Amino acid sequence: MFLRVDKLQIELPAPLRADPNAGAALQELLGGKYGEMSTLNNYLFQSFNFRSKSKLKPFYSLVAAITAEELGHVELVSNGVAMLNNGPDLVGADEEDGGDISGAPYEAMKDIRLAGAFSSNAGGAMPMNSNGASWNMDFVTTTGNVIVDLLHNFHLECGARLHKLRVYETLTDPTGREVCGYLLVRGSVHAHAYALAIKNLTGVEIEKMLPTPNIPLGNIPECQKYLDEGSHRRLYTFSPDDYKDIAGIWGQGEMALPDDPAGELEVIEGMPDGGKIQQLTGVPSAFTPDYAPEEMMEIAAKLYKASR
Amino acid sequence: MFLRVDKLQIELPAPLRADPNAGAALQELLGGKYGEMSTLNNYLFQSFNFRSKSKLKPFYSLVAAITAEELGHVELVSNGVAMLNNGPDLVGADEEDGGDISGAPYEAMKDIRLAGAFSSNAGGAMPMNSNGASWNMDFVTTTGNVIVDLLHNFHLECGARLHKLRVYETLTDPTGREVCGYLLVRGSVHAHAYALAIKNLTGVEIEKMLPTPNIPLGNIPECQKYLDEGSHRRLYTFSPDDYKDIAGIWGQGEMALPDDPAGELEVIEGMPDGGKIQQLTGVPSAFTPDYAPEEMMEIAAKLYKASR
Amino acid sequence: MFLRVDKLQIELPAPLRADPNAGAALQELLGGKYGEMSTLNNYLFQSFNFRSKSKLKPFYSLVAAITAEELGHVELVSNGVAMLNNGPDLVGADEEDGGDISGAPYEAMKDIRLAGAFSSNAGGAMPMNSNGASWNMDFVTTTGNVIVDLLHNFHLECGARLHKLRVYETLTDPTGREVCGYLLVRGSVHAHAYALAIKNLTGVEIEKMLPTPNIPLGNIPECQKYLDEGSHRRLYTFSPDDYKDIAGIWGQGEMALPDDPAGELEVIEGMPDGGKIQQLTGVPSAFTPDYAPEEMMEIAAKLYKASR
Amino acid sequence: MFLRVDKLQIELPAPLRADPNAGAALQELLGGKYGEMSTLNNYLFQSFNFRSKSKLKPFYSLVAAITAEELGHVELVSNGVAMLNNGPDLVGADEEDGGDISGAPYEAMKDIRLAGAFSSNAGGAMPMNSNGASWNMDFVTTTGNVIVDLLHNFHLECGARLHKLRVYETLTDPTGREVCGYLLVRGSVHAHAYALAIKNLTGVEIEKMLPTPNIPLGNIPECQKYLDEGSHRRLYTFSPDDYKDIAGIWGQGEMALPDDPAGELEVIEGMPDGGKIQQLTGVPSAFTPDYAPEEMMEIAAKLYKASR
Amino acid sequence: MFLRVDKLQIELPAPLRADPNAGAALQELLGGKYGEMSTLNNYLFQSFNFRSKSKLKPFYSLVAAITAEELGHVELVSNGVAMLNNGPDLVGADEEDGGDISGAPYEAMKDIRLAGAFSSNAGGAMPMNSNGASWNMDFVTTTGNVIVDLLHNFHLECGARLHKLRVYETLTDPTGREVCGYLLVRGSVHAHAYALAIKNLTGVEIEKMLPTPNIPLGNIPECQKYLDEGSHRRLYTFSPDDYKDIAGIWGQGEMALPDDPAGELEVIEGMPDGGKIQQLTGVPSAFTPDYAPEEMMEIAAKLYKASR
Amino acid sequence: MFLRVDKLQIELPAPLRADPNAGAALQELLGGKYGEMSTLNNYLFQSFNFRSKSKLKPFYSLVAAITAEELGHVELVSNGVAMLNNGPDLVGADEEDGGDISGAPYEAMKDIRLAGAFSSNAGGAMPMNSNGASWNMDFVTTTGNVIVDLLHNFHLECGARLHKLRVYETLTDPTGREVCGYLLVRGSVHAHAYALAIKNLTGVEIEKMLPTPNIPLGNIPECQKYLDEGSHRRLYTFSPDDYKDIAGIWGQGEMALPDDPAGELEVIEGMPDGGKIQQLTGVPSAFTPDYAPEEMMEIAAKLYKASR
Repeated sequence: MFLRVDKLQIELPAPLRADPNAGAALQELLGGKYGEMSTLNNYLFQSFNFRSKSKLKPFYSLVAAITAEELGHVELVSNGVAMLNNGPDLVGADEEDGGDISGAPYEAMKDIRLAGAFSSNAGGAMPMNSNGASWNMDFVTTTGNVIVDLLHNFHLECGARLHKLRVYETLTDPTGREVCGYLLVRGSVHAHAYALAIKNLTGVEIEKMLPTPNIPLGNIPECQKYLDEGSHRRLYTFSPDDYKDIAGIWGQGEMALPDDPAGELEVIEGMPDGGKIQQLTGVPSAFTPDYAPEEMMEIAAKLYKASR
Repeated sequence: MFLRVDKLQIELPAPLRADPNAGAALQELLGGKYGEMSTLNNYLFQSFNFRSKSKLKPFYSLVAAITAEELGHVELVSNGVAMLNNGPDLVGADEEDGGDISGAPYEAMKDIRLAGAFSSNAGGAMPMNSNGASWNMDFVTTTGNVIVDLLHNFHLECGARLHKLRVYETLTDPTGREVCGYLLVRGSVHAHAYALAIKNLTGVEIEKMLPTPNIPLGNIPECQKYLDEGSHRRLYTFSPDDYKDIAGIWGQGEMALPDDPAGELEVIEGMPDGGKIQQLTGVPSAFTPDYAPEEMMEIAAKLYKASR
Repeated sequence: MFLRVDKLQIELPAPLRADPNAGAALQELLGGKYGEMSTLNNYLFQSFNFRSKSKLKPFYSLVAAITAEELGHVELVSNGVAMLNNGPDLVGADEEDGGDISGAPYEAMKDIRLAGAFSSNAGGAMPMNSNGASWNMDFVTTTGNVIVDLLHNFHLECGARLHKLRVYETLTDPTGREVCGYLLVRGSVHAHAYALAIKNLTGVEIEKMLPTPNIPLGNIPECQKYLDEGSHRRLYTFSPDDYKDIAGIWGQGEMALPDDPAGELEVIEGMPDGGKIQQLTGVPSAFTPDYAPEEMMEIAAKLYKASR
Repeated sequence: MFLRVDKLQIELPAPLRADPNAGAALQELLGGKYGEMSTLNNYLFQSFNFRSKSKLKPFYSLVAAITAEELGHVELVSNGVAMLNNGPDLVGADEEDGGDISGAPYEAMKDIRLAGAFSSNAGGAMPMNSNGASWNMDFVTTTGNVIVDLLHNFHLECGARLHKLRVYETLTDPTGREVCGYLLVRGSVHAHAYALAIKNLTGVEIEKMLPTPNIPLGNIPECQKYLDEGSHRRLYTFSPDDYKDIAGIWGQGEMALPDDPAGELEVIEGMPDGGKIQQLTGVPSAFTPDYAPEEMMEIAAKLYKASR
Repeated sequence: MFLRVDKLQIELPAPLRADPNAGAALQELLGGKYGEMSTLNNYLFQSFNFRSKSKLKPFYSLVAAITAEELGHVELVSNGVAMLNNGPDLVGADEEDGGDISGAPYEAMKDIRLAGAFSSNAGGAMPMNSNGASWNMDFVTTTGNVIVDLLHNFHLECGARLHKLRVYETLTDPTGREVCGYLLVRGSVHAHAYALAIKNLTGVEIEKMLPTPNIPLGNIPECQKYLDEGSHRRLYTFSPDDYKDIAGIWGQGEMALPDDPAGELEVIEGMPDGGKIQQLTGVPSAFTPDYAPEEMMEIAAKLYKASR
Repeated sequence: MFLRVDKLQIELPAPLRADPNAGAALQELLGGKYGEMSTLNNYLFQSFNFRSKSKLKPFYSLVAAITAEELGHVELVSNGVAMLNNGPDLVGADEEDGGDISGAPYEAMKDIRLAGAFSSNAGGAMPMNSNGASWNMDFVTTTGNVIVDLLHNFHLECGARLHKLRVYETLTDPTGREVCGYLLVRGSVHAHAYALAIKNLTGVEIEKMLPTPNIPLGNIPECQKYLDEGSHRRLYTFSPDDYKDIAGIWGQGEMALPDDPAGELEVIEGMPDGGKIQQLTGVPSAFTPDYAPEEMMEIAAKLYKASR
């Protein structure tokens, strides 16, 4: 089972302006081969299909716990995409009707890279890559063989790191850069964790390949505060009570990677503090939440009050 | 953010025997147009892309909270698929090596409906439908318009109910039938909830179309215990602390549907008790968790002990 | 614009029994690369995109008129698929409710080749091939170059003839065989027509490649009555008033192919007489048209009466 | 069976200039999830697969008749796309050869949003969406259950209305705006018709949700002449003789929606007057209809003459 | 550039009988995620996109040379699929016409797992997996980063080994088993080679994870003769003159894996001796090479003679 | 079996500058319906699935030999794409680390037509078309019927010629124009060869349709040097020793097409001289071959030396 908490894993800075092409670029990290939908669903289905769970408990727990974090990554990137597509929240802009729409108010949307993102989704995120192609099961490996699955996951996190670095290099807006910076730190943790799992099972010190690409996290300014907090040394259980035995793999005297701030690896029970989610203020002229939303908002306010 | 709990929403009865074609049939409820991957991702992306969240709080909360339940449904169906594909847990069967594999031990797998489910996934679940086609974003509607999205969701739950009924009619094994029975009750709750949301916003008493198809839940024996518990009247927040304002929609004196056991609708904070997850015992001759897993299991036991 | 007539191009004999695998085989002629959805959409989009229509009128009319016939072929194959999947009409079987459905009444559907055809479509036809893969635009060629498009169409009809022959060879049921027999005759007309168009434009006597595969229509018993009627010499305008100038291509003294019954080619204004469409009697236990359809039928009867 | 008439449902104004990105935007209404290929094929396959046709005649006729109109919508949008991609007809421009093509005459086509639309289709329409993704069967619902199918159709028309509004807001060219204006009126008729069908069967006054999004048609200048004609109150049989019993649903004293010009709903036997189709003048330098088409045109003229 | 040699890498034993489901199972090794189309195209595009080729010559050569071998693997599996689908060559069976085809001679083909493989391909191989889904670019990783690409390739070969083992376990026919046996040996070589490349670049002894799954090649009887020949120690340049510098990686005193017959790794310039390709005798009743092929064969004989 | 030679079929001129949209346009000739992946895989699978090979030897050899040339075309276009995406080789640019990447050095990549080509492939070629859609098996025809397959191939080469012409018209950079010029000549040879094969088998002089589109090769300046060399009259065996009997079809007194420089057709044993492959210099700031590649290059140099 899964529980939901109405927060993002970090609070994202507001975008400076709407930039649908930046939103489209960030989609690569959501629905691409090495995007968050891929990491999520690989681990999700591997955890469902995991064999002999009790006898391999710490390995099962590792995949299961990281799954929950990845779902939060899907959420984080999706929020980033929608924020970049729509620009900063404009307080009160959603309280009138959409006015006269006959003058092609969205002419500019015809020339953005993924025009369908406006006409079908009003700038919302979708499980697709930066070229508009859908995420699909061809990106999922779940063989039931523990070594093959873990090796796949290790390679997946390395590939994801590369793609995050490249998307980061295309973005100037603080929203998208923060998404990349945070995910680079967390993705490094996952690569490290899968490496340790493989090392435990095979004796191969595969974590010595890290970081790949061979650029230290410290070179990315947006990673710095997370390194300062020690995020690179922390693996969360993302569970009220379960998966604590991941400490059998992440811990046991294992240390941070040599290029990163030194320190011992540690398991944190539960989740990070998180940050608030943006409003994504409606735009009545684009029919979000509707053309004339005032009555809808009144109804909502009344229902909310009734629920208290 | 999301948290994970190492339980299923209900405990599933063990399958009587491996029946990969039954597992394949159940895949329709996982990756089909009206399957759980579709309900999950529709609500997941709608919640990410929801506009003017504060001003429309109970509607946002409704979509957000049901998302978390749907992820548990994906988990439940996936577990059901893997159980039907693999048969009952055989204690200790995973403690030896796979022996002599040269005699075509899996010849029968060549004739099952989805042979790739064996060769690539060892009978594990995948985000695909019963014909082996991948789930993809063409099944996702997230327009940013609240009425269109809610209407879509209402239709989606009705379609999902129909498909669940038909899959139920093809299954004799208790595992698959229990999955269908439980999901029929919970899907009816979701259809009802979206209907009430629409009624609040538009005044149209769309819940009077329910149930559709027009067969009462009481006609399905596997639904009975859930009706007895009142599951059809309960909507969970699936959150430690959030989304309680769904009571503005699910509650307020609204009653169970006329065909179902009478009573008032109620919001339950948190989640159901849930049930334990099957082991899915490994089969070394199929290389799950590996051909010769004994050492792997010893290592896991040692790591587990170290983590306590 | 298009008009619809509530008839099939021919009346299909009732199937002897339900045979979902036969229905699935016939799907190849509906949604496959060389199926009717492909011929339809190639000609449909070519006619939309046709350049310099007036100056190339007979060629434009040829593509436009055949499009309308192909839509009827899509209809014919679809009806055939649904009939084979569902078996003969059972008068009155749809007038009660679905009864007790708890005994897995459709267990057999779990083992048919395309189980989703039952659970999602209740045995209805879908735009997919015999392996369950969707028809899509990769099967469409519309280049705007008249020679390339006509050559493509000629090849398409030859490929379609081959595939029809092979599907015919797999079917024993009269419904499916009649579909194949009729379409083999009509497809041969289309191949011949495109060949004559190419000959007019290039001087190449490409019709001399026909028939390909080199089996005469006369070898297929189900083709015989259509040959007797002269169907192989007739091209219909499938229009109330337009496209008569296809006689510039199909006619002008051109004769039937040497292997077929002799005679001059002729254009028929309008459409064939056609035959009636089967009822496809509902099956309440499969929720078609619904679980308890009596009231629905009463309402329909009342509305029908009111409309007269 | 289907007949074809060599007219569009309305005459489209010539585009001011070629604007391939506008053409690409309009593709969303052709091949997108809520585009005309989707409405067409949903109703087409539902009509093929309709159960107990006689006993549910007005409902069957409704789906069958609207199918024929939708095919005309596919035609209308496709023509609009090709016109926007290619610009206004240039009389005589197709009567010479393509001249010297060595100077990269189509360099600009490398930077349009969907470059393949030029290289493969010479600006012709294709069954794809605005991001270049193919239409496919995942957009088709045909369950055989009348309520689920009608509810799906109602939701589909509402979603289609939203997408048409957004595409309209991106277009400045009169061709594309006229396409949207007309389709908004006709789509509203279809949403209304499915709502009445549902109301008849379930008693739920679902038409009270209309219009959704909640912007009146009167706010769109391009809709005005169609409202003035009463198009919003008319449902056509699109058949020489059949489907007249749709008057059991569309009529019976039912009135236009409150926001639209008042009046009773009426069924029109047959089709609208329609308008002429553009020539889409060939461009020899782009090899349409060919590089040196003069001889081709002479041949066509001769064949045309021979056909009279 | 590439050259072709009219031989298979090994000679395959004739199949005992036609078994289309066995052919379909083998398709997983052709078009699946871990099939030969995937290994081929990963290495093909990586070699095209390889950066700084001269400065990284042995690594470039490794990928480039293995590409050529993989193309031969695609050929080998394809031949195996076609052989299993069609059964043993029947001398002279293709010299008459197809006779009377009206008695449903291929009724059995309606019930095979992938019926389209008969109707569209006459039992020929296609770039699809065992469930009939197409190979596509989602299976290709080519990042331009040498470490990520090599790590991907190492994981790919391990996954491919697992899938080959499972397919092997489903097959009883000698043709399919020989394909698997040979490819298991060659795939092990490629996994080993990529491991050595990674070790050279990173110092990580990743080859110590091999074999994975942890079953020795010696347990597969069909591998034995290739082990006896030393195939597991040989890497071919598959080139008349190039790629010899792969000896910098495969060689240098590196030894066979501990579970396999001992010996030093060696580079072989050129290719293996190979074996002859089956005739795949035509079946005129299935229209291969045609319904009445005698004249075609006479023409071919004449042309062949003229070419000498 | 296949051998690889470390050369391109021709040497490509260096691009003037990086132009990712030009690279994207060229992708249409790689992964489009009529692109090189399509010609390659059609002929590859047809050759694998060819029936009665000995008795139809020259026809088998024709398809088999052209396959090998097409693989070189895939290589040529892929190299062209990568060169256009990346710009000219910069000597030594790959010898330092990527420096400070925090200033969004690739901001421009966010606005290119296929942004994923940068983030996932660093400008490398992929088996996709110019709109970013994957190549897939829907583009493959392999029926086992010789006439249908040859006719398909003839149409394919004509369509490919049209698409090459249009892509040529969009490109100003010499790299892309050279690719098109060369392929136009070679594609014409293949169309001619398939036409002769058909003529031999059917007596239809289908080569008289050539060239289609009806523009002579001589109108394309980039074709001139290949015409001067007589490339349009030459068919290579692309084999050390096999396929020489294609001279039964390509030869026998057949002459060049009337619009092209006169002369007899001739078979060349082996392959063309070919030209060298570009380095595609790495860009450390884009992590190709890595962020800090110096050590990698030292290792490679050492291994290379060891291999001599």
